Amino acid sequence: MRDIERWDIFELSLDGPQDGNPFIDVHFGARFSHKHRVVEVDGFYDGANTNRSSNKDRSSGVYRVRFMPDTPGPWSYVTTSNRAELDGVEGQFTCTDPNPGNHGPVRVSNTYHFAYADGSPYFPIGTTCYAWNHQGDELEEQTLGTLRTAPFNKMRMCVFPKHYTFNQNEPVYHAFERADSGKWDYGRFNPAFFQHLEQRVGNLRDLGIEADMILFHPYDRWGYATMDAETDDRYLRYLIARLAAYRNVWWSMANEYDLMRAKTMADWDRFFRIVQESDPYQHLRSIHNCHQFYDHAKPWVTHCSVQHHDLGKTTEWRELYKKPIVVDECGYEGDIERRWGNLTPQELVNRFWEGTVRGGYVGHGETYLHPQDVLWWSKGGVLHGQSAARIGFLRQILEVGPAQGIDPLCEDWKITCAGVEGEYYLCYCGGNRQSARWQIDLPEGTRFTIEVIDTWEMTITPLEGTYSGQCEIHLPGKPYIALRIRKVT
Amino acid sequence: MRDIERWDIFELSLDGPQDGNPFIDVHFGARFSHKHRVVEVDGFYDGANTNRSSNKDRSSGVYRVRFMPDTPGPWSYVTTSNRAELDGVEGQFTCTDPNPGNHGPVRVSNTYHFAYADGSPYFPIGTTCYAWNHQGDELEEQTLGTLRTAPFNKMRMCVFPKHYTFNQNEPVYHAFERADSGKWDYGRFNPAFFQHLEQRVGNLRDLGIEADMILFHPYDRWGYATMDAETDDRYLRYLIARLAAYRNVWWSMANEYDLMRAKTMADWDRFFRIVQESDPYQHLRSIHNCHQFYDHAKPWVTHCSVQHHDLGKTTEWRELYKKPIVVDECGYEGDIERRWGNLTPQELVNRFWEGTVRGGYVGHGETYLHPQDVLWWSKGGVLHGQSAARIGFLRQILEVGPAQGIDPLCEDWKITCAGVEGEYYLCYCGGNRQSARWQIDLPEGTRFTIEVIDTWEMTITPLEGTYSGQCEIHLPGKPYIALRIRKVT
Repeated sequence: MRDIERWDIFELSLDGPQDGNPFIDVHFGARFSHKHRVVEVDGFYDGANTNRSSNKDRSSGVYRVRFMPDTPGPWSYVTTSNRAELDGVEGQFTCTDPNPGNHGPVRVSNTYHFAYADGSPYFPIGTTCYAWNHQGDELEEQTLGTLRTAPFNKMRMCVFPKHYTFNQNEPVYHAFERADSGKWDYGRFNPAFFQHLEQRVGNLRDLGIEADMILFHPYDRWGYATMDAETDDRYLRYLIARLAAYRNVWWSMANEYDLMRAKTMADWDRFFRIVQESDPYQHLRSIHNCHQFYDHAKPWVTHCSVQHHDLGKTTEWRELYKKPIVVDECGYEGDIERRWGNLTPQELVNRFWEGTVRGGYVGHGETYLHPQDVLWWSKGGVLHGQSAARIGFLRQILEVGPAQGIDPLCEDWKITCAGVEGEYYLCYCGGNRQSARWQIDLPEGTRFTIEVIDTWEMTITPLEGTYSGQCEIHLPGKPYIALRIRKVT
Repeated sequence: MRDIERWDIFELSLDGPQDGNPFIDVHFGARFSHKHRVVEVDGFYDGANTNRSSNKDRSSGVYRVRFMPDTPGPWSYVTTSNRAELDGVEGQFTCTDPNPGNHGPVRVSNTYHFAYADGSPYFPIGTTCYAWNHQGDELEEQTLGTLRTAPFNKMRMCVFPKHYTFNQNEPVYHAFERADSGKWDYGRFNPAFFQHLEQRVGNLRDLGIEADMILFHPYDRWGYATMDAETDDRYLRYLIARLAAYRNVWWSMANEYDLMRAKTMADWDRFFRIVQESDPYQHLRSIHNCHQFYDHAKPWVTHCSVQHHDLGKTTEWRELYKKPIVVDECGYEGDIERRWGNLTPQELVNRFWEGTVRGGYVGHGETYLHPQDVLWWSKGGVLHGQSAARIGFLRQILEVGPAQGIDPLCEDWKITCAGVEGEYYLCYCGGNRQSARWQIDLPEGTRFTIEVIDTWEMTITPLEGTYSGQCEIHLPGKPYIALRIRKVT
């Protein structure tokens, strides 16, 4: 019997009919059972069988169903289909303990935070390469090489290619076949497009990076932003059937949904419901705004994916939606002319800290002008900036902090602070600020150590002694200073 | 016949009764006439006659009336009083042309800007030393020495002494006499207090600095913030009778009026009306908020005196109130622990520019920790920071720009810009930003020169050639960069 690692992908491939339109005419899926639990999973048609060494008829098509088992032990399955040759195929496998580094999918934990399914904490430190997976293998491999040593554990990326300033190139793959008329045949997906996408999602998984998949976006010259509702829905179900078994997938309904003129709020609600009902594993779901927030309080939204430059509002958003706040887009380090892409590295790092000490999570992006228009923010490649290293420094600090995450504790004239009351405080004085002293009011009767963190220089300097109650401490009198205050245990 | 320079002070002193309470019992004033115009001016009691060489009875009191003539030519006057010895005294003087450097009082000009009475432009570049005039002569002279070479042409200062953090010292003078009970006798002013104040206002005038006189403020341990209405009103009239003839006086009803719990909105309205009706010269009037703006649209408000950290709202405030916007307080350069006093010099300069390119005016203050608590922001002394020089650089740029002032022209993803359409553009890219190129859309058919201004390094670098229509220019890719674009004439 086959062994499948917990939260890895079990895949069953069957040959089946290729006549008619298998994407639409053939229904195929499977029921996976463990003890009293049965999970129904959609399969998908993956195109004509191109395996020349196969014993099967070369005119057959390939059907696959993928499953991510979340419980160790014996599982069995039986396929279901409206075509006899695909129906009632049975089998078993054993779900084994995960290998090191496989912590399962990420879930919301402790209302405002995240954790892997195995309970280990996950602090999202994301970056953005919207269209990196549409750049061809050479650049895509370079991007993966960069990610190997970069500090990021989440990647925002679009399923569809991107048309925008600095993004004029034609993608390698398209999602649909062309009809004889030269127009897209929206009834026929292009399996190569999705196979390539899966390859890249798998590459990210192997690097420990969550793939925040953007399902729709407005930057389009090919028609992906203006498909009809039937095509939209079929696309969603097909993508989910293919990708949901990847443990590192998140679903972002859209980037800047409010710029997509062809969609209504009812469309977005429907997309959420389709994703919610189609994904057997309930991967994280969000939607990303340009100007106006979607109502993140709606039940199918697992966390807030925010575009906003003012991280000072993070606490307010937490209180408004009672969900994790991920400010995926607060401006990017770079030197282009647009305001969203001309932040100094200092300012981007500053925004990370401003969001962090208000109990939120912030995302990275980089937009330096490049002779071939290879800007990390959309195409990947290599990093040119100085913020990524500092963001990695912040990640290290979070990962040795409270496992449950840190929540906002105070924000006043002097300081902004998140932590766990009486245990742990991470305080930040701010960019553009240079206090030379702070008066801090710590709980009486408990001793604390205080460390001065230079978030830009990436140094952590312990202050001598321990502290309790009201204390005044001296600071370097320069910007980008934080304090870590921990209970002596 | 005496000569009095235009916009200088004509003063008539008369000896009069000292019995009873001359501050309340004696009414004294004068009518000043030029051709068909008659200006009624209040005089004031200035205390017992201490001039030993005087021929007069040493038990007499001194009464003065001051007048600032605004029209050259012959003037005559006649005093009015409820006491015979002060009534009907007549005289003449000639108002002569002003000396160089005397441009008269500052007025609102061109809706959002200011100009001196002689028509020369005035661009307010203010600083704040709230209580500098209560620190004793040694420190006060040092402050004046600093101001002599500093770039400021406006000073925010309180009539009353200040009690606050870093401000625990007792003032040299108090505004009232003490009664035998040890309590203040609010019916009797202390002339020495006001004489000293006038001396300092005159010192500022001689340095070309407008004195933005804060009439009330909440930081008080002596009782000035909680006087009854009768005392408040008498104080206002007395102060105006003494000070209004100083051409460099502005009236600020309060600092952080909304923190003064003992006052109602009706009180503030009344104060404005009293100042408006008592000041024969209609000096500028404003009121300064902490959290909530007073309705600056009210008719007696000449300009908006704002406390706010976000200069991005300047254009909005202009549109809201249709008056000049002076952001007197946007945070100070310094290293104290409070957010309002720990800005880096870069950030304060940045805020000046952000306000300027939105058609507003911004104020300076400095709050570096000092072993004797001599912080410029309240006590004066010397400047320790780095922003003042850059603010002076901005002042120079404004003073060679359009005389009518610059108005906001555009604010988009790329640039914020104020100027005069088709003639002059002052653009600012921002702090924390580092665009390496800008695409600018200049009017077609007109040639412009472009200069790159490094607002921090204080350099102005002309770009080669001239520009018209859509153009792309290369920038240094660092923060604090502005552009000056001027029509070729």
